[in-house]
Amino acid sequence: MARFNKVTIIGVGLIGGSIGLAIKNRHAARLVTGVFRHASTLKRALKARAVDRGVMDIASGVKDADLVILATPVHFIPELVAKVLRSAKPGTIITDAGSTKEWIVRSVEKFQGKGSRVHFIGSHPMAGSEHTGVEYAVSDLFEDSPCIVTKTPKTDPKAVRKVALFWKSLGGRVRVMSPVEHDRTVSLISHLPHVVSFSLAGAVPGKALICAAEGFKDTTRVASSDPDLWADIFLTNRQAVVSAGRLFNTYAARVLKAIADNDRRTLVSLLKKAKANRDRNLYAKKV
Amino acid sequence: MARFNKVTIIGVGLIGGSIGLAIKNRHAARLVTGVFRHASTLKRALKARAVDRGVMDIASGVKDADLVILATPVHFIPELVAKVLRSAKPGTIITDAGSTKEWIVRSVEKFQGKGSRVHFIGSHPMAGSEHTGVEYAVSDLFEDSPCIVTKTPKTDPKAVRKVALFWKSLGGRVRVMSPVEHDRTVSLISHLPHVVSFSLAGAVPGKALICAAEGFKDTTRVASSDPDLWADIFLTNRQAVVSAGRLFNTYAARVLKAIADNDRRTLVSLLKKAKANRDRNLYAKKV
Repeated sequence: MARFNKVTIIGVGLIGGSIGLAIKNRHAARLVTGVFRHASTLKRALKARAVDRGVMDIASGVKDADLVILATPVHFIPELVAKVLRSAKPGTIITDAGSTKEWIVRSVEKFQGKGSRVHFIGSHPMAGSEHTGVEYAVSDLFEDSPCIVTKTPKTDPKAVRKVALFWKSLGGRVRVMSPVEHDRTVSLISHLPHVVSFSLAGAVPGKALICAAEGFKDTTRVASSDPDLWADIFLTNRQAVVSAGRLFNTYAARVLKAIADNDRRTLVSLLKKAKANRDRNLYAKKV
Repeated sequence: MARFNKVTIIGVGLIGGSIGLAIKNRHAARLVTGVFRHASTLKRALKARAVDRGVMDIASGVKDADLVILATPVHFIPELVAKVLRSAKPGTIITDAGSTKEWIVRSVEKFQGKGSRVHFIGSHPMAGSEHTGVEYAVSDLFEDSPCIVTKTPKTDPKAVRKVALFWKSLGGRVRVMSPVEHDRTVSLISHLPHVVSFSLAGAVPGKALICAAEGFKDTTRVASSDPDLWADIFLTNRQAVVSAGRLFNTYAARVLKAIADNDRRTLVSLLKKAKANRDRNLYAKKV
């Protein structure tokens, strides 16, 4: 397995903290440094043993790093990459864990000089939960989870391979694709479910929820996610999310029309198609 | 706790089998009889210890019963009640576990003679899973689960109380309401999530699903439910489900419009409202 000597994580919350724990657990690097904005978060991260040491400024945190991982909310990522580029040594690879890729990768490629010897490779480990904070970090978060690594005409193939091997070393099922393909894919399998889940949680009157059982709970679990974080994810992938929403609306309208029309044959066929699609493809781990 | 001497379950699948196991576990009755259509199902139910004995015809299964529970798909329930009425002794209470109530209760009250000494009380234990079959039955399925028992101007208050106490004795959080109120409530918290979940599972192309993670999996879990069973649930509660669908569509349209318009302030406010509604009310166990 690819092994980095020094890894630095900027943003040590649920995701960043789980990366730290997974690295230690899998011996994927020798030293894990966390970069923090608040002393209190540093303290919590050390208590959770998510990092070996913590620093309060990016320059000192990344200057010796072989791999820098940005695990912050998406809208901070491009400006943080710019900061890391100023302090990282040649050969350093920077990656991230953001849920959208086209906006991030394009922003970075705009300001990154040609022939730069520090590489940025977009990543999206598709794991997490509705919780936030390093207290929820777990060492097996990425085990058997899909992880998308992006390549573009400008990315260095060796750096792409190293980042892919890194996520594999944490247990991820890695797939390499373009940022555009990533954004279209996750708009369907992650962003759309969040839109649907938030809409369901918002639409149902609170009074009725008192009787709600497991079905409602699971269908809306991700609606307990952080609203600010998800607003930025949706807004950095607008076009794909809106298209995914149209796809959903079309199917839902057909289901509701079949119910309104008392058209059992059409209704059963729509429900069967949906169940088969989920049962057949969701557990097909061909990544 | 109310204790029945002899309970008969018609339809011993996931729900009926779990009722049998829960009765034994909680000592809520002395003898549990199952009524079967197929010898193979009888064998599986005995193996799962879900019933003490099994019979192949309704008349002999219910003739001594104090409580008869119909745990079959909804569209069989009214005709089964009619059959049970012909063989049950005076004082027997019949209840069910169907997911819609107005259609079932109204159908039964139409053919049930005035002053009948056998009582039908509608029930809806809101527990279950996407699986079917007695092999998935578990003794704690109803523990801490909401359970709605219905009353109408025609129901016997004593019988309603006995049925409510029965579900309580299996661990349920019981609420008594009219069939119409039940149908409106569950259209929002159970039927609508199923419509949404099936639509999501049907709309997303299978190819994208290979990368899907926990978020998609949970949001669509109930779309792996039985399509025929759910078609009948939706169709016996058409008006309420269609209204619930409209409520959802309105919220989802606002979310998608805010994304399309890049309107962060509106988007965050919609997501926050949704999260707060779920977090505040879903775990408020005031039933």
